[in-house]
Amino acid sequence: MTPLPDPDDLADRIRKGERAALSRAITLIESTRPEHRAVAASILDRLAPDTGDAIRIGVSGVPGVGKSTLLDAFGSMLTAEGHKVAVLAVDPSSVRSGGSILGDKTRMARLAVDADAFIRPSPSSGTLGGVAAKTRETMLLCEAAGFDVVIVETMGVGQAEVSVAEMVDLVLLLMLAGGGDELQGIKKGILEVADIIAMNKADGDNARPARAAASEIRSALNILAPRSAAWTVPVLAVSGMTGDGLGELWSEIERFRDIHRRDGSWDDRRAEQRVRWLWTSLDEGLRRRILSGARWRAEIAAGEAVVREGERAPSAVAEAILDRLGLPTEPTDTSN
Amino acid sequence: MTPLPDPDDLADRIRKGERAALSRAITLIESTRPEHRAVAASILDRLAPDTGDAIRIGVSGVPGVGKSTLLDAFGSMLTAEGHKVAVLAVDPSSVRSGGSILGDKTRMARLAVDADAFIRPSPSSGTLGGVAAKTRETMLLCEAAGFDVVIVETMGVGQAEVSVAEMVDLVLLLMLAGGGDELQGIKKGILEVADIIAMNKADGDNARPARAAASEIRSALNILAPRSAAWTVPVLAVSGMTGDGLGELWSEIERFRDIHRRDGSWDDRRAEQRVRWLWTSLDEGLRRRILSGARWRAEIAAGEAVVREGERAPSAVAEAILDRLGLPTEPTDTSN
Repeated sequence: MTPLPDPDDLADRIRKGERAALSRAITLIESTRPEHRAVAASILDRLAPDTGDAIRIGVSGVPGVGKSTLLDAFGSMLTAEGHKVAVLAVDPSSVRSGGSILGDKTRMARLAVDADAFIRPSPSSGTLGGVAAKTRETMLLCEAAGFDVVIVETMGVGQAEVSVAEMVDLVLLLMLAGGGDELQGIKKGILEVADIIAMNKADGDNARPARAAASEIRSALNILAPRSAAWTVPVLAVSGMTGDGLGELWSEIERFRDIHRRDGSWDDRRAEQRVRWLWTSLDEGLRRRILSGARWRAEIAAGEAVVREGERAPSAVAEAILDRLGLPTEPTDTSN
Repeated sequence: MTPLPDPDDLADRIRKGERAALSRAITLIESTRPEHRAVAASILDRLAPDTGDAIRIGVSGVPGVGKSTLLDAFGSMLTAEGHKVAVLAVDPSSVRSGGSILGDKTRMARLAVDADAFIRPSPSSGTLGGVAAKTRETMLLCEAAGFDVVIVETMGVGQAEVSVAEMVDLVLLLMLAGGGDELQGIKKGILEVADIIAMNKADGDNARPARAAASEIRSALNILAPRSAAWTVPVLAVSGMTGDGLGELWSEIERFRDIHRRDGSWDDRRAEQRVRWLWTSLDEGLRRRILSGARWRAEIAAGEAVVREGERAPSAVAEAILDRLGLPTEPTDTSN
């Protein structure tokens, strides 16, 4: 086992943009060992003031929508313009092995060999909450390492989209034209967190149908979508294969940033995200420190089975478990 | 101060449908005093097996959509058909006084004097989470008292809709026709939790525009909404004033119930809701028992201020607070 790194040293090297240091710190973040987590937390805390300068973009879309091809082309366009681009994935559904890093890099062949790009697959284990927390921390490390565009990619299924919306500045939803079935498989709630929608594969014979579908979606949104004085969700036609529309896509992202920076909602949103993250961390910390022992895990599993059957009130079962833990029903330091 | 009631006695009287007993128990649920809460929890636990027979309907819509008039007419129609109807409100945004009960009853004049109906305004204080938890418990007491239709009404603003979707079987969204602005003010995410949509005020000169708007919304949903093999969201035109379309609305609700009962998703959804409620109760219980003392409230407020500024990582701040609480970083009973 290699010795634990010195947090100050590793933080310094990350600030200088050393990729090996960045990868090492991310590995510590993803570790389940408490001593690794402690070092990772300490590095993250040191780097917090060096974060915040990137645009954080969440990208959603069902499998088959052409996400990898699009991100490969889009990321390469941005690095050619002088940006540094990190692509992180959130996918708790697939348990990935070491080989998946290769898989992710193969999916984005140009970006994988680009010195100004950094691709990191989803952590290989954990609940959605755990994976999302690790991805959020990895995002901050990338920012401290100088990446100014961070893309968080989800697999378009499950609750991952909503978690990702909680950590990014804007959400890009990729869709496909296709006879009204284009949204099949997309989970409820994704459409309404989208800030920009792009119909992908608008190339060759599909260019015209994609543009028609974009226009149809635009009209439907006009009827259904909540109006915001500040922002009307644009619906673009793009092609990851030919690169068509990717310049316009980046313009829209910059326009979104500029408008929301100007009215203050950019910083407000980030501040709110950090406060919610604090509370989520407190809840998770309490669960881990108090409820994760074998005895309480068994008690809670038994409680779940009871409430599943509906024979007892969930709130009463919860209180009974907390009573048996020996926790006072009210805090004892109210006079402090 | 009246003495605390005996839980067994009060539970028995609620099972017999005694309104005074039901009201008394709800008041205990809404109390902030620990001894009241303990009795309420105990009553709720006794009555859990007597719950579950009602249809639980969430009703959303912006102020001005005519919710009270519609619920008054809809509830009266149902009681005339032999149903017992409870209407509960979730509205953490307005701090209500005792007078608001009268206010709520005035809003629903017929239902307020209907022996087969029960109207209860939102608890007068608390966070959304707290108000939602109390409403959920009140819902169960109403079911044990024999109400077979429970309507949970929200004010159409804020996050209340999403909380309510977590406790009901289906969500009815009320809308108004009106030149494309009908959804103004509706929060993101509401549309996508709706299982049935009704255009209200489809009466007189507005009948035709309301039907046209319903048809427009139906087309837009057809383009945008996630498809489900089991259920296509119906868009109806109704009038709380004339009662037009209310029979059809109830038929759609029954159809929704029958379809989802048949495929098992009705019971599955409720079981999942109860398990999530258990976890929410555990989180809230841990927060209340451990973090709600004056000293920790101050520590957390200071932590919120620090992370709001972005100078430290929220997860590190959370761990530092939990460390200072003296909690071990890992549970101590792993060998039990």
